[in-house]
Amino acid sequence: MEVEVKFKVEGEIEDKVRKIAKFIKEKFEEDLYFSHPCRNFAETDEALRLRKDEEGFTLTYKGPKVEKETKSRHEVKLKVESYEKAKDLLEKIGFKPFAEVKKIRRIYRTDDGIIICLDDVFNLGKFLEIEVEGEIDKKEELFRIASILGYKREESIKKSYLEMLLELKSSSSKTYQS
Amino acid sequence: MEVEVKFKVEGEIEDKVRKIAKFIKEKFEEDLYFSHPCRNFAETDEALRLRKDEEGFTLTYKGPKVEKETKSRHEVKLKVESYEKAKDLLEKIGFKPFAEVKKIRRIYRTDDGIIICLDDVFNLGKFLEIEVEGEIDKKEELFRIASILGYKREESIKKSYLEMLLELKSSSSKTYQS
Repeated sequence: MEVEVKFKVEGEIEDKVRKIAKFIKEKFEEDLYFSHPCRNFAETDEALRLRKDEEGFTLTYKGPKVEKETKSRHEVKLKVESYEKAKDLLEKIGFKPFAEVKKIRRIYRTDDGIIICLDDVFNLGKFLEIEVEGEIDKKEELFRIASILGYKREESIKKSYLEMLLELKSSSSKTYQS
Repeated sequence: MEVEVKFKVEGEIEDKVRKIAKFIKEKFEEDLYFSHPCRNFAETDEALRLRKDEEGFTLTYKGPKVEKETKSRHEVKLKVESYEKAKDLLEKIGFKPFAEVKKIRRIYRTDDGIIICLDDVFNLGKFLEIEVEGEIDKKEELFRIASILGYKREESIKKSYLEMLLELKSSSSKTYQS
């Protein structure tokens, strides 16, 4: 399982992150989300994502969030040889690309193997994600790190970037229509 | 498109194949076919297959056959990093494994790039497949090679191994029930 907490970042926090974790790398991630041919992923709280980054192409299934306080969920990640072929194959079996999420991600890692990401998401702004592979009880460790960086657990954002972008889209189209 | 003709083999034809094509390799192919969560692939004449062989793991979408005389169809082939992860991901999005096809395939290639496969399919027996990537008019070249090997175009089998195995299963279960 991917245990994960997320916070909205205002101002500068990278100096604090540098004190507790080691910089790994910066990468550009381009994600394409697909709708299911006969299941409403928004209702079931699932997602199917095709990611393109410097490491290659990854198809990821995200299961429903497993609890209220974090955005932790089961994931299946599958590396594939080609972005275009994966997109083509998914479309042939009825999946439709419906949203893109693009971000610049600066990745740090603590000595305990916890990943801290500083994300700059196109159209959404800056976020902090703290994550680790493991069981849900790991969340306490993540909230402890969040607290060192100045964030309270009640500020944790459960929504995915996809959900936030879709809300933004729907509210801006409402504004435009009104 | 994969343009392809297939014939049932009785007796020995490999000596004839050797005269017109070069031996490439023998491999064991293990195929797992999946049903679609909301589309009847048997009716739409499509298939989704996960193959395991010495070259790795390949997920293949097979479109409907494009004409009556051959088993030619559009295909999308996608290499994936892991058989288990691919199976897991497909099952998570509602696809169900429902049939396995296993065969030993001896692959030959002509100077013109046409592939001749001698297949020994578990529970079905021996078959000859002659195939090439290209447009449907290539089928005449395939029938010409078939004729050199002693097969008439009217003997061409349009059914896939999967269809043949499912028929066998259904007829043997009928026999058992009666």
